[in-house]
Amino acid sequence: MNDDGGGRFDRLYADRTMSMRTSATKALAAPRRGPGIVSLAGGSPEMGAFAEEALRRMGSSVVREAATAFQYGPTEGASAARSVVAEAIIAAGTPARSEDVLVTNGGQQVLDLMGRVFLNEEDAVLVEAPTYYGALNAFAAYRPRILGVPVDDEGMDVAAAREVLERARKIGTRVKFVYTIPNFQNPTGVTMTLGRRRELLELARDFGLPILEDDAYGMLRYEGESVPTLSALEHENIGGPGRVAYLGTFSKVFSPGVRLGWVHARPDILGRMRLAKQGADLGPSSLSQTVAVEFFRGGEWREHVRRLGGIYRERRDAMLDSLAEFMPEEVSWTRPEGGFFVWVTLPENLDAAAILPEAVGRGVAYVPGEDFYADAVAGKNRLRLSFSFAEPQLIWRGVRILSGIVRDRMEIEDIAAGRGLREQAYARGG
Amino acid sequence: MNDDGGGRFDRLYADRTMSMRTSATKALAAPRRGPGIVSLAGGSPEMGAFAEEALRRMGSSVVREAATAFQYGPTEGASAARSVVAEAIIAAGTPARSEDVLVTNGGQQVLDLMGRVFLNEEDAVLVEAPTYYGALNAFAAYRPRILGVPVDDEGMDVAAAREVLERARKIGTRVKFVYTIPNFQNPTGVTMTLGRRRELLELARDFGLPILEDDAYGMLRYEGESVPTLSALEHENIGGPGRVAYLGTFSKVFSPGVRLGWVHARPDILGRMRLAKQGADLGPSSLSQTVAVEFFRGGEWREHVRRLGGIYRERRDAMLDSLAEFMPEEVSWTRPEGGFFVWVTLPENLDAAAILPEAVGRGVAYVPGEDFYADAVAGKNRLRLSFSFAEPQLIWRGVRILSGIVRDRMEIEDIAAGRGLREQAYARGG
Repeated sequence: MNDDGGGRFDRLYADRTMSMRTSATKALAAPRRGPGIVSLAGGSPEMGAFAEEALRRMGSSVVREAATAFQYGPTEGASAARSVVAEAIIAAGTPARSEDVLVTNGGQQVLDLMGRVFLNEEDAVLVEAPTYYGALNAFAAYRPRILGVPVDDEGMDVAAAREVLERARKIGTRVKFVYTIPNFQNPTGVTMTLGRRRELLELARDFGLPILEDDAYGMLRYEGESVPTLSALEHENIGGPGRVAYLGTFSKVFSPGVRLGWVHARPDILGRMRLAKQGADLGPSSLSQTVAVEFFRGGEWREHVRRLGGIYRERRDAMLDSLAEFMPEEVSWTRPEGGFFVWVTLPENLDAAAILPEAVGRGVAYVPGEDFYADAVAGKNRLRLSFSFAEPQLIWRGVRILSGIVRDRMEIEDIAAGRGLREQAYARGG
Repeated sequence: MNDDGGGRFDRLYADRTMSMRTSATKALAAPRRGPGIVSLAGGSPEMGAFAEEALRRMGSSVVREAATAFQYGPTEGASAARSVVAEAIIAAGTPARSEDVLVTNGGQQVLDLMGRVFLNEEDAVLVEAPTYYGALNAFAAYRPRILGVPVDDEGMDVAAAREVLERARKIGTRVKFVYTIPNFQNPTGVTMTLGRRRELLELARDFGLPILEDDAYGMLRYEGESVPTLSALEHENIGGPGRVAYLGTFSKVFSPGVRLGWVHARPDILGRMRLAKQGADLGPSSLSQTVAVEFFRGGEWREHVRRLGGIYRERRDAMLDSLAEFMPEEVSWTRPEGGFFVWVTLPENLDAAAILPEAVGRGVAYVPGEDFYADAVAGKNRLRLSFSFAEPQLIWRGVRILSGIVRDRMEIEDIAAGRGLREQAYARGG
C-alpha cells in the first residue's frame, strides 16, 4: 500500500475516538480456555448446562420458523420475544409489560442507547466507582463527564452521591442520569441494601433524574434473600415504569451468543431508544429471537437457571474458599451472594495491572481494578476475579497461582521499601 | 402513572434526539404482506428461495456448534465468519482479505460506526441526493451537515460533488467522508459508470477524503456487465484497501434476520470501528455467524444467489412492464440492472407523501421520495418502488392501483389549476 492509499486520516477522526478505551479489549481478549490458562477475567457464562433436548428444539425452530427467523423484524423486537422478555423480568421479581420492552443487542446496547438518547458532550453521568467498564466504554462515545460515587458493603454510597449532585448543580454541570448495578455489582459483587435503594430513588426524584438500573445478574442469586429492584420499588409507588429504565439480558442465564438484551422503560424514553436503535442497526436479529423464544417457551428454562445457579454457587464457593486458603492476610475481598464476581483488594503498594503479565505468564488471567474507574489512577491495587467460567478445581489452581504471585510481590515491595528506608537513612546520615 | 414517575424528561434528552427521523419508521412499518396490501415499500428480500436442505443444515449447526454458537465471540467477528465474508466480497468482484474484515449487525451498523469514528458535530458528509434514508438516520446521531450531490443516469454527479467540496473548503466546513452506493443505488436503482467511479476516486484523493462504498446489492445484477467497485479499482492501484471502506451485507443475498453485515477497510479505520463496536454492543452474534458460516460453507450458496437473481429479475420486469402499461406518459422512472428499486418521478405538482395514505387505503404501499433527502423539501414528486418482496402478479396489481391514483390526482390538480386560472382571470377582470 503506498501513499495513494489515502495517507493518514488522523486529522479526520472524531474527537470521541480518543476516549475509546482499549483496556477492556485487553481483558476480554485474554485467553479463555486456552491450554494451561485459568481465566478468571471475562464474565463468560457456563454453556455446559444446556439440556441436549433444548438445543435440538432450538435447532429445529430455525428450520420450522425460517420464514420469520431469516427475515427483517420490527425494531422494537418481535412480539413473541417481547413477551418472553416480560416473563423473564417478572421471574426476576420486577413487574413488566411487553409493550414497555425494547429488545436490544445484549445489555451492552442499552448502555449505548441510553447515552445516545440523553448525552450531549460535557453532560455528566453519575456512576458507581468502580463500575462495569463496558458502561464506561459505551458512554465514552458521547463524551460525557463521569461522576463516580464510592461503593461500600451496602452498595452505592447514596449520601456521597447527593453531595456529588449538589456540587454539580452548584458549578452548573448538567447531570443526565444515574447508572447503577444494584444486584451483585460488576465488579464488586456487592448488593445494594433495600434502605440504599429507597434513598437512591428519593435522590433521583429530588434531582429529577432518570436511573438506568442494570440487572444483568439479578436471576443468579446463590444465597440470602432477594432485594426488590429499583424498578419494582418504583412500581409499588406508581404502578409502572417511571424514572427507572431497567436493563436486562439473556447473556447470563441463557446465552451471550444470541446477543439479546432489553430495556423496560416508560414510553417517552423507550420511543427515543427505539428510534436510536433503528439508526444504529435497524433492529434485533430475528434468528436470535426465534431461538430464544423457543428456549423460553416451555417452563424448562427455569430448571436451566436453577442448574446454572447450582454450578455458579459451587464455583463461587471454590473461589471464596481458595482465597481464604491461599491469600496473605493483608489481602481482602468481597463475598457476593450471586452474580459472577469477587473484588479483591491487595496491599496499597501493589499494582494489579503491573502484575497481570506475570500472572498470565504463569497461567491465570483477571481484570485489573483500574479498568473499572473512569480515571485510571483509582483502583490500582484492586482486581476483579470472575468465577463464572472456570470449573472449581481450576479456580483453586488459579487462585493458588495468583496468591503465590501476590506473596512474591509483597516480599519484593517490602524489600524495596526496606531498601528505600535504608537509602533514606543513608541519605539523612550522609 | 402519576407525576412521581419522573415528570417529563424533555429537558434532559440529548440534542441529537431532535434530528432522529420518524419517516423511515413510517415506511418500514407499512404492512408487508397483509391481506390485500401490496407492499412496494420496504426492501425485504424474498425468503422462499432457500433450499429445505440448507435450512436443515443450518438448524443442526446450532445444535452441533452449541458451545461456540451460544458463547461470546470476538468483537471483530469469528475467524470462520470473517473468512466467509472475504469469500463473499471476492465473489462480488472485490479483492478482500479476512483480516481486513469487521463483522457488524447488518450493513446498517457500518453506517453508524463510520459516523461514530469520523463525525464531530457540525462536520459534513458528502452523499448522493437522494440516498438511502437509513444512512441519513445513522449519521444523524452524530449531528453532521449533509451535503447532497445530484444523481443522474450515470450515478453521482462528480463534477457537482467537486464544486460542493470546493465551496465547503472555502467556507471552512470540515468534510469527513463521502458516502456512495455505486451499484443499483438505493433509492434510484442507478449504477455509477466506470468513468464516474474513476473520477470519484480522483476527487477523494484531491480532497484527502475516505469513501464509504455501500455495496449492499452488488451481487444482484440481472442484466448488463458488472462495473468494478471503487474498492476493486483502488485495489488495482495500491494492492489493498486505502481510502475506500467497503460495506456489504448478508441481508440481501442470504438473510436480513441474521443481522450480519461487514466492512472491509484498512487497519487504522478498521481498528477504530472495532473499538467503537465494542462499546456499542461488544460484538456480533455468535449464533448468527454459526448459521451463516454453515450456509456459506458449501458452494451451494452461489446457486441460491443465482436463484434469487432469477426471482428478482422476473419481479423487476413485472414492475417495468406494468409501469409502462399503466402509468400516464407524464410519469417517468429508472430502469435498474439489478438491486431492488425503481425510482419514479411524478408530474411536478404531485406530492408522493400526500398520496400515500390513499394508496395504502387502496392496497399499495411505497416510500415517498422526500424520505431520501436530508432536506425534506426535495423529492416531493418522487417515490421509490421496491420489487423485491411481492410476486409478479401482485406487482402488476399494485402498480395498476398506484397508476390509477396518480391519474386521478393529475386530473384533480389539472382541474384545480384550471380553476386557479379562472379565479385569476376573474380577479384580473374584477
